[in-house]
Amino acid sequence: MLKIINHGCNGKMGRVISRLVSEKSDCKIVAGIDKNPSSSDFPIYTSLKDVKEDADVIIDFSFHSAVPELLKNAELKKIPVVVATTGLSDDELCTLKEAAKTIPIFRSANMSLGINILINLVKEAAKILQNNYDIEIIEKHHNMKKDAPSGTALMIADAINEVLTEKKEYIYGRHSKTDTRKENELGIHAIRGGTIVGEHEVIFAGHDEILTISHSARSREIFAIGALKAAEFIVNQKPGLYDMNSLLEKG
Amino acid sequence: MLKIINHGCNGKMGRVISRLVSEKSDCKIVAGIDKNPSSSDFPIYTSLKDVKEDADVIIDFSFHSAVPELLKNAELKKIPVVVATTGLSDDELCTLKEAAKTIPIFRSANMSLGINILINLVKEAAKILQNNYDIEIIEKHHNMKKDAPSGTALMIADAINEVLTEKKEYIYGRHSKTDTRKENELGIHAIRGGTIVGEHEVIFAGHDEILTISHSARSREIFAIGALKAAEFIVNQKPGLYDMNSLLEKG
Amino acid sequence: MLKIINHGCNGKMGRVISRLVSEKSDCKIVAGIDKNPSSSDFPIYTSLKDVKEDADVIIDFSFHSAVPELLKNAELKKIPVVVATTGLSDDELCTLKEAAKTIPIFRSANMSLGINILINLVKEAAKILQNNYDIEIIEKHHNMKKDAPSGTALMIADAINEVLTEKKEYIYGRHSKTDTRKENELGIHAIRGGTIVGEHEVIFAGHDEILTISHSARSREIFAIGALKAAEFIVNQKPGLYDMNSLLEKG
Amino acid sequence: MLKIINHGCNGKMGRVISRLVSEKSDCKIVAGIDKNPSSSDFPIYTSLKDVKEDADVIIDFSFHSAVPELLKNAELKKIPVVVATTGLSDDELCTLKEAAKTIPIFRSANMSLGINILINLVKEAAKILQNNYDIEIIEKHHNMKKDAPSGTALMIADAINEVLTEKKEYIYGRHSKTDTRKENELGIHAIRGGTIVGEHEVIFAGHDEILTISHSARSREIFAIGALKAAEFIVNQKPGLYDMNSLLEKG
Repeated sequence: MLKIINHGCNGKMGRVISRLVSEKSDCKIVAGIDKNPSSSDFPIYTSLKDVKEDADVIIDFSFHSAVPELLKNAELKKIPVVVATTGLSDDELCTLKEAAKTIPIFRSANMSLGINILINLVKEAAKILQNNYDIEIIEKHHNMKKDAPSGTALMIADAINEVLTEKKEYIYGRHSKTDTRKENELGIHAIRGGTIVGEHEVIFAGHDEILTISHSARSREIFAIGALKAAEFIVNQKPGLYDMNSLLEKG
Repeated sequence: MLKIINHGCNGKMGRVISRLVSEKSDCKIVAGIDKNPSSSDFPIYTSLKDVKEDADVIIDFSFHSAVPELLKNAELKKIPVVVATTGLSDDELCTLKEAAKTIPIFRSANMSLGINILINLVKEAAKILQNNYDIEIIEKHHNMKKDAPSGTALMIADAINEVLTEKKEYIYGRHSKTDTRKENELGIHAIRGGTIVGEHEVIFAGHDEILTISHSARSREIFAIGALKAAEFIVNQKPGLYDMNSLLEKG
Repeated sequence: MLKIINHGCNGKMGRVISRLVSEKSDCKIVAGIDKNPSSSDFPIYTSLKDVKEDADVIIDFSFHSAVPELLKNAELKKIPVVVATTGLSDDELCTLKEAAKTIPIFRSANMSLGINILINLVKEAAKILQNNYDIEIIEKHHNMKKDAPSGTALMIADAINEVLTEKKEYIYGRHSKTDTRKENELGIHAIRGGTIVGEHEVIFAGHDEILTISHSARSREIFAIGALKAAEFIVNQKPGLYDMNSLLEKG
Repeated sequence: MLKIINHGCNGKMGRVISRLVSEKSDCKIVAGIDKNPSSSDFPIYTSLKDVKEDADVIIDFSFHSAVPELLKNAELKKIPVVVATTGLSDDELCTLKEAAKTIPIFRSANMSLGINILINLVKEAAKILQNNYDIEIIEKHHNMKKDAPSGTALMIADAINEVLTEKKEYIYGRHSKTDTRKENELGIHAIRGGTIVGEHEVIFAGHDEILTISHSARSREIFAIGALKAAEFIVNQKPGLYDMNSLLEKG
């Protein structure tokens, strides 16, 4: 029985985590942490340092600025952490890498297995097609999303640049009467509308042929499922920094 | 036998017109006009006023600034004109409307029948869905295209605005950390890559459902086919301004 | 306050209806009917004839063979019915038409507004494109769906045939070494996989151009929303048979 | 200067090969072979054994039953062959493998680089996703295509089965009232319409997420380009059987 602390338990994703765990028999939430405590099936605290319950792992879907304190207390308590929170600053990432020397930390900007497989496929395609194909990314999300393009679109673009010999420059829209596409452009297009959970499409357009790799998330549950898989994985690891590829490689 | 003058005969589309006509038995090119004359199956002139051949209709795929002189001479010679040239300025459009009082003129920013049917469908959908659905347009073209978004994408957006009670504001890309989509936005996204001839997709994204209407042009020939159909149509009309809807209504 | 009887209240869609109504303030479920009664916020009966509560309208997401008895009792009680159950036999449809002489009945094989708009757009496109374009339908649903193609795909195909001069013959898959497509074919392709709620795509493929109209349902809620709108509409109507077009025309 | 024999030079693809080579300066057609000889820029024979010209390589886009004689004569003349002809029988494949002991032979059922990259990506995805995702293939071709599904769709399906622990059974359409999808099904759907050159889409549908890898060919030229690349590659190889992966690995 995996004993989980739900950090950010009253947020949108925290609640999906609680619901999903309640439907499973091999894990349970022993405590929640949230700046807005409320009644629940499990005790809720405002900081990890106050949690009295014994736990195997922490799942964190919170806000980027809450992550450093979480990690400091997790180090003290020696509890592995799955960091699913996005938008970490460079400083916060530094703290995270430092903490990974003491405890196992799993971090991914997108917890869906599908997106992480897409990224691996896109890297492979980009390596082979880099000279004669133009690469563009289209992402679609609901009309309440604040950041554009999505963190995942940027994660995909960065992964592409990682494998290219000549790095691309990101372009976030086109509006002109006179400019053709430059070879070093990588267009990233953010469509916003309705309640779309999240779609990402990478287009490789060459001479008279187009290769497309795309992913469509149909519910937020897939991110919770991925985080739970990450939690199961990380409890058995040595201190260090892990990501979805660590999990995928394990099979 | 329809006798055609090919205005802009040495351009990309002008050459498609010549090839297409040469494969047909009910029409022929009697003369071409181009600022870069060259040898051909038919005589080529630099201005309509020099053309000696008798003609039923002029098909024009040239450059916007060449249109006024063409129309002036067409009025003098009383020859109907199919204007398939895009990017006309307001002044040039005025000249065109004036000329349409003397001769029949057919004009469309996109000569494909499919695109014009798409526009009619999109207008109908927009009328019904305007209150609860977000509208976005994605267009894809080859990497040598100079204008973004495409004239056709703007033609679609304008057609949508025509039927909406609350007009939308066009947005040509999104890049921000803090802004959600505003209700009055209509995103237009220009993807550029490879040799894509032209794709247009209109997305209506509502609560948990998405309606999409899209068109894919697979060769430039379809624009030439549409221009020829327009030519056949216009020779029998009275002076006036006609567009694809005039042709579609006729059945 | 609209007083609703939920017929089939313990089924997948019946439960979505109950949840949706509980979130609204202008309507409520006064009774449920199900062959598997269970405890609930409202009394549940096994037949409409036992229901003691006063009601304005019945929403029916049940099984086709349960519909005739429901309608018989609704006629006696003079309560309008929204029939969202699919797969009605010819006999059952007859009963339904007969009952519509006494009470207002709303019936649609697909309660989503989006799908009904798609059908109208598809009909319009088919009318214009019938001579030179091949029409094919692709539908995608989850791997637990029993019928293939979906009732909605057949509803779309029938709507197309309604407007065509030369009727098409439906083809449900192709496997051959020697046969080209016949002009009178209309291919209907049923993709099954994962948890896909429902996608329908109608393709008009012509000479070098493709027009596509598609709809993607992202949750079952949209069918419940449509049924509730139908319920609000039908309570004010005279006896007769109504469908989504009656509602769409009203605006 | 690469000296090429064009086997099947008067066929649809043979003519694309001739046109493409005529636009290049580093290769030329020295002779053509076709059962329907005709006048041309190069001499045309009815069999390779009659060809007097000296050649480096043969490109073959012909008919499956013509391949064995071609290979027999190529062995005698020690000329490498690019076999782009599809639909080879098991016997013909045997002959091909035998000939590859004497001369270098390059064979692929689809000469587009993009499709071969798609196949590699699909294999990688299938390996990882095989347990929890349903796999379906949709292919689209013009209405004159005789075989369904396409040879390329079957090539993709076979490549998937190669990497799966539990092999899938191919299903070519669904039409039933009572059957849910079986786990070991792999649906292959052949859409036919208009002048579509060739599109292939592989869908991995899991719990609330869908991964799609697709390829769209926009002209037959891409198959000729691939065959020319294969020709350049094979002239420098030892006897043996090669395919697109040999070429892709070389970079």
